[in-house]
Amino acid sequence: MASGSAGFSMVQAVQMATRNHGMPLEALRYPITPTGLHYLLIHYDIPVVDEESWRLEVGGEVRRPRSLTVADLRRLDAVETCSTMECAGNGRARFDPMPASQPWLLEAVGTSRWRGVPLRSVLEEAGLGDGVVEILFTGLDRGVEGELEQSYQRSLPVSEAMREDVLLVYEMNGAPLLPQHGFPLRLVVPGWYGMTNVKWLSSVTALERPFEGYQQEHSYRFRRDEDDPGTPLTRMLPRALMVPPGIPEFLTRERLLAPGVHVLQGKAWSGHAPIAGVEVSLDGGESWEPAATSRELDSPWAWCSWTYRWEAAAGRHTVCCRASDEAGNVQPSEPGWNVGGYVNNSPQRVVVTVR
Amino acid sequence: MASGSAGFSMVQAVQMATRNHGMPLEALRYPITPTGLHYLLIHYDIPVVDEESWRLEVGGEVRRPRSLTVADLRRLDAVETCSTMECAGNGRARFDPMPASQPWLLEAVGTSRWRGVPLRSVLEEAGLGDGVVEILFTGLDRGVEGELEQSYQRSLPVSEAMREDVLLVYEMNGAPLLPQHGFPLRLVVPGWYGMTNVKWLSSVTALERPFEGYQQEHSYRFRRDEDDPGTPLTRMLPRALMVPPGIPEFLTRERLLAPGVHVLQGKAWSGHAPIAGVEVSLDGGESWEPAATSRELDSPWAWCSWTYRWEAAAGRHTVCCRASDEAGNVQPSEPGWNVGGYVNNSPQRVVVTVR
Repeated sequence: MASGSAGFSMVQAVQMATRNHGMPLEALRYPITPTGLHYLLIHYDIPVVDEESWRLEVGGEVRRPRSLTVADLRRLDAVETCSTMECAGNGRARFDPMPASQPWLLEAVGTSRWRGVPLRSVLEEAGLGDGVVEILFTGLDRGVEGELEQSYQRSLPVSEAMREDVLLVYEMNGAPLLPQHGFPLRLVVPGWYGMTNVKWLSSVTALERPFEGYQQEHSYRFRRDEDDPGTPLTRMLPRALMVPPGIPEFLTRERLLAPGVHVLQGKAWSGHAPIAGVEVSLDGGESWEPAATSRELDSPWAWCSWTYRWEAAAGRHTVCCRASDEAGNVQPSEPGWNVGGYVNNSPQRVVVTVR
Repeated sequence: MASGSAGFSMVQAVQMATRNHGMPLEALRYPITPTGLHYLLIHYDIPVVDEESWRLEVGGEVRRPRSLTVADLRRLDAVETCSTMECAGNGRARFDPMPASQPWLLEAVGTSRWRGVPLRSVLEEAGLGDGVVEILFTGLDRGVEGELEQSYQRSLPVSEAMREDVLLVYEMNGAPLLPQHGFPLRLVVPGWYGMTNVKWLSSVTALERPFEGYQQEHSYRFRRDEDDPGTPLTRMLPRALMVPPGIPEFLTRERLLAPGVHVLQGKAWSGHAPIAGVEVSLDGGESWEPAATSRELDSPWAWCSWTYRWEAAAGRHTVCCRASDEAGNVQPSEPGWNVGGYVNNSPQRVVVTVR
């Protein structure tokens, strides 16, 4: 874990960490993350939105530009899907030095039941021009980043935007979106890292050239150093996480557990393909044993559950878990440091004293 | 603000800060803090509670011990009240060195509409023994702190416990308590710091001698040094906070604002007495001007609102706010460092570049 950081004070780390909520790892017990426990990464501020005057502007290279109210969107056929969302920076604070950004350890994840309108319905209604290659999504949240004043913006290739399960979402877990989750409308792209799922949507714009804005061309790229143009981040790599066993020590979060049989449990997900397997190590990653996996949510985009029966003997143990997916992706023991501190999916390590 | 910390690594600070959610300060706009944005300080883990088998054990020195279900409690006359809750450690990370505990800057606050049963009804039904001096509250959350394995426990003097507005709460903002806020039952003591409001209540015990447990005699005391027995923390000292004006820079959270008239707004509260006044400084605390205050919530225990009309001229400004209450408490410019890092209510300072 990080002992130093690059140009980033403890106060800066703390002021980001206290406003950007992580999911406490014991919430891995729940198939659907309870309201208020889903992770939040808010680049700027939660904007004030007046639902009455709010409109979604559908424009750019379309035949029939549209200006839609929430009621207009609710009149279209709705779709509901469960999906797991993870921040591309999850694991950043486990790099050394820690890149200067939101200091996630492992908790930037959550699973929700999303309800909304397929983006495709809205794009087909508007009629994409023949030369359109990307769809741009603009949020109402504004701030300064990389010395640029900007609205939060991300784009998607048309092929992804036209997937049936890419939604313009107005409900989360059966209730209207909360202010912090993008009220009144957000994008949800199952399988992709969180930055894709633009909140507080104000416009959807069809482009004939790829978008080159800050969050696309500078942020959210895997870059080995400042001169590396890097590669864009897209889908979530596999990760397994466990509910930390036993009870915690307040300051260190290390665990205390009574000897005997303990069923370790957790979740695993990948945005590339179904989970192929989950493994557990009881010796800090030296040796691995398979865990049992099962699917509680009927969705290819939601995490699966896993359990492992541990006969815990007295002593101090480092318990780890890791997942692989059917596309052949595995969690690496040595993650690749990168400028933005992205996709550190090295296995979770939990120190447990059994006594 | 803190540049160092006492025996506390950045990873330890971060792992506490990401799991203990702060209220993003722009949420000071709302009279009632939206679900999921109220601050959370969870000493150990969110426990698993089965509502069917859960009971509240009312015992100790009472004439008629009781074992109550949620349905039993819901059959009693309910009371609803709005109150502001703040962590006693709010401001800790602004001490230098920063004491080793949850690193709050300013965001450990929230206001909710609580519904439940007056504790007094339950205590009167049980019949307190003549020698009872305190009521002890035990939560289901367990952990290790100060090398002691413990359930979270706090007590109240009988005089406070018998106040009409001290509630055993089962609803927050019109919905059953969320797991992280103490489902199925928690204590709410309006005016007192957050540690008093025990979550996941499992028992209420009448005591003939003052409770001397860890959270009463060691934690949550104002101690100048390790040898100082200190004084217990009880009611919230006054504090005013503002919605940071303009838009934020991502890493520093410093603000950018266009020149012209801008109405600063925020909230102010005290657990001792009504707010007497709020003042604003535009020069880092050199000079102060009065703000206008108003009451949006019809409750003596909820924060009041304030506004201040600022003609923002180009330049770099440090904007501050502070409150005083009718009991004569004021926010100090130099807070008193203490071992636990409690009650740092020195004025909020927001750096704003106007251009």
